[in-house]
Amino acid sequence: MIRRASCQSDNTFSVATDTAIVRRNAQNHDARYGKDKFHLSIWYDEPANLMSDIVEHGGPSPLWLCPGKGNAVTQKGNVMSKSLIQLLNTTYPLIQAPMAGVSTPALAAAVSEAGALGSLGLASASLDQAASMIREVQSLTRKPVNVNFFCHQPTVADPVANQAWLDHLRPMFDEFGATPPSELRDIYRPFPGYAQMLELVLETRPAVVSFHFGLPSQEYIDALKNAGIVLMATATTPAEARQIETAGIDVLVAQGYEAGGHRGVFDPENGDAQFGTFALVHMLAKQSSLPVVAAGGIMDGDAIKAALALGASGVQCGTAFVLCPESAANDAYRQALQSERAYDTRVTITLSGRAARGLRNRLYIDEPSAARPATPGYSMTYDAAKALNAVASARGNYDFAAQWAGQAAALARPMSAAQMVQTLADEAGW
Amino acid sequence: MIRRASCQSDNTFSVATDTAIVRRNAQNHDARYGKDKFHLSIWYDEPANLMSDIVEHGGPSPLWLCPGKGNAVTQKGNVMSKSLIQLLNTTYPLIQAPMAGVSTPALAAAVSEAGALGSLGLASASLDQAASMIREVQSLTRKPVNVNFFCHQPTVADPVANQAWLDHLRPMFDEFGATPPSELRDIYRPFPGYAQMLELVLETRPAVVSFHFGLPSQEYIDALKNAGIVLMATATTPAEARQIETAGIDVLVAQGYEAGGHRGVFDPENGDAQFGTFALVHMLAKQSSLPVVAAGGIMDGDAIKAALALGASGVQCGTAFVLCPESAANDAYRQALQSERAYDTRVTITLSGRAARGLRNRLYIDEPSAARPATPGYSMTYDAAKALNAVASARGNYDFAAQWAGQAAALARPMSAAQMVQTLADEAGW
Repeated sequence: MIRRASCQSDNTFSVATDTAIVRRNAQNHDARYGKDKFHLSIWYDEPANLMSDIVEHGGPSPLWLCPGKGNAVTQKGNVMSKSLIQLLNTTYPLIQAPMAGVSTPALAAAVSEAGALGSLGLASASLDQAASMIREVQSLTRKPVNVNFFCHQPTVADPVANQAWLDHLRPMFDEFGATPPSELRDIYRPFPGYAQMLELVLETRPAVVSFHFGLPSQEYIDALKNAGIVLMATATTPAEARQIETAGIDVLVAQGYEAGGHRGVFDPENGDAQFGTFALVHMLAKQSSLPVVAAGGIMDGDAIKAALALGASGVQCGTAFVLCPESAANDAYRQALQSERAYDTRVTITLSGRAARGLRNRLYIDEPSAARPATPGYSMTYDAAKALNAVASARGNYDFAAQWAGQAAALARPMSAAQMVQTLADEAGW
Repeated sequence: MIRRASCQSDNTFSVATDTAIVRRNAQNHDARYGKDKFHLSIWYDEPANLMSDIVEHGGPSPLWLCPGKGNAVTQKGNVMSKSLIQLLNTTYPLIQAPMAGVSTPALAAAVSEAGALGSLGLASASLDQAASMIREVQSLTRKPVNVNFFCHQPTVADPVANQAWLDHLRPMFDEFGATPPSELRDIYRPFPGYAQMLELVLETRPAVVSFHFGLPSQEYIDALKNAGIVLMATATTPAEARQIETAGIDVLVAQGYEAGGHRGVFDPENGDAQFGTFALVHMLAKQSSLPVVAAGGIMDGDAIKAALALGASGVQCGTAFVLCPESAANDAYRQALQSERAYDTRVTITLSGRAARGLRNRLYIDEPSAARPATPGYSMTYDAAKALNAVASARGNYDFAAQWAGQAAALARPMSAAQMVQTLADEAGW
């Protein structure tokens, strides 16, 4: 197992393993290996150099070669992206997805402490809540943490559309002896143009900030970069990936159609290309110069290996962390995820107003239907769904809850966040 | 490169490589290796045995270990499913997708001659055409070939729905100075209940028969199995996979949402779960005892490696073979596939009446739309689209053509079928 890793400017790579410090100069093949053949790991800038070492120096035991430029090759024959873990300053190229409403400071901190990148989803947080969550996670860990924001165009309020939607939901409220709210509010303010939120980030300086639903202005991006913050953004298409690259973002998160939660589509008016994880990760890895993080359907080490084979530099897992005791998921959500319902996820806009994948429930069933009016947009639709879920769940009914989950949700395993990180790393052969 | 392989009942595995015959008994570790370290391949029933060999016998050079039970591990560290290539009697666990209308006897024969499994899509063939195609491919190769049939429930004719659809298309016919056909016919007869087609298959005995859109009756399945024909069927969900396994089919084709052509969904009335290749292959490989063939978005060796990492025993590639000179794709289709349009595939029911993925064109754009009537079902809808495409393409307009393609179509490469098989095998490290 890798305990510590660093890269010097003279091309010397240094790795501390369980049993030895390994140093290797990529130029002169001056290699000293550890003794324990089961715990040796070495950085290689080129797989060919590993082959040279085996042929020229013999090595302490057979070593496994995997493809990938600039990667760390471990004893078990697996590969970790050097550039990504250097960028993120983590032990593993593994990110816990932000999952607004499900992630907590405790979850993010536990993940980061275990060597992956923990994330906070702040899309649904007020300025005060965001400040409190960032400060809490920073009090729990000094390791890098990622903070995620949504960058959608705010919906123009349309009282007629709001009312039509509330009328549509009225029979469901009736079932619980409740009435719909009198109006719907745009409950979530997007990051672009939110100067106080930018200020908070610049003041608290999380190691990583990531964007969903598009990008903020170049001014915001530059301000964050100048503060030394590493930036990531979600792409669901090759075209979005090109925009992200042009804006100077550091890491691409390739979100496949399998992924739970909100689809990161920049402009929903243009439709959703629905690229699956397999096709999207492969195309972006081939066509972008940025490190690609695969997201969508990744639940275990085999899936991580597959994502890396497709050219990803790392992976982002969301649903895999929902069952951790540190997540904010309630009991109903946890039970549903471990039931047959886990096989039945769908993408819908009727819960929040933007397309999102979750366990299918009564708010999904009616979509698409000529009988329902247009949704009033994000996040008014979400405001309505939350009101409906509040009255339903107060009566023990979770038919209207937002239980986001990816298509491989049936493979979710309940364990602590630290165990999950270690399990994934072990299974990936890291 | 593996030249010949066999497995005896006493657990002795034998492989002929470029330079030596390798024999290995899984029980007593009596191994003799070939001399040329670059061309040695060995069957192992358990990866652990390969590790033992390295530790105990040293081996002629470093060997690479890959996971997978009952697999052939090649010198390059890659893995081929022993059970699948034994079942299919091919050199590689690689299948050219059937692609009715695109596959030809020449394509299937070239693929099979090159060591993969060539396929004929006979869903659109009459009995005479099917007989002629099967006999032609059998005259071109003695290697195994797969013959594919559709197993849909025939649509009940509805003259009102047909007429409404024709009226909907009338303005498009108008553009070319043409009138829609006076009626729509169900042009493709499904395999279930088609006794003469079953007879033809039993008489000509292709090595492999595969099913799409469901399964024929158990009587048909048993008749084919009793004739020594290997059977494969497409699953798009875990539930369909369970049905396939219960019916005694030999191989599962896991068709991800990325895949070009018709979605294999058994019962479209129940909706489409839209599982991406990544999630579906992984879940079916974990949950089924059958060998799983991954389909959807697989265009090169990296994608093959990823599919195998997810637990697949082999892969099926369709779009990767469309640009082969042996395919029936016309020039417009080939050009479109090599243009920016390759990034824009969609699933629609407006072309054939069943959901299928292809390059988006004018028949896709209007879906879903309240302005269009319900399609008249499969294959009446196809009959209409073919009539429209006939008049349009006669004027050099291909806006209504069925140009099926998967989501990774932009990675398609023009080369002969034999070159494609060899390229994929080389890239996969086989």
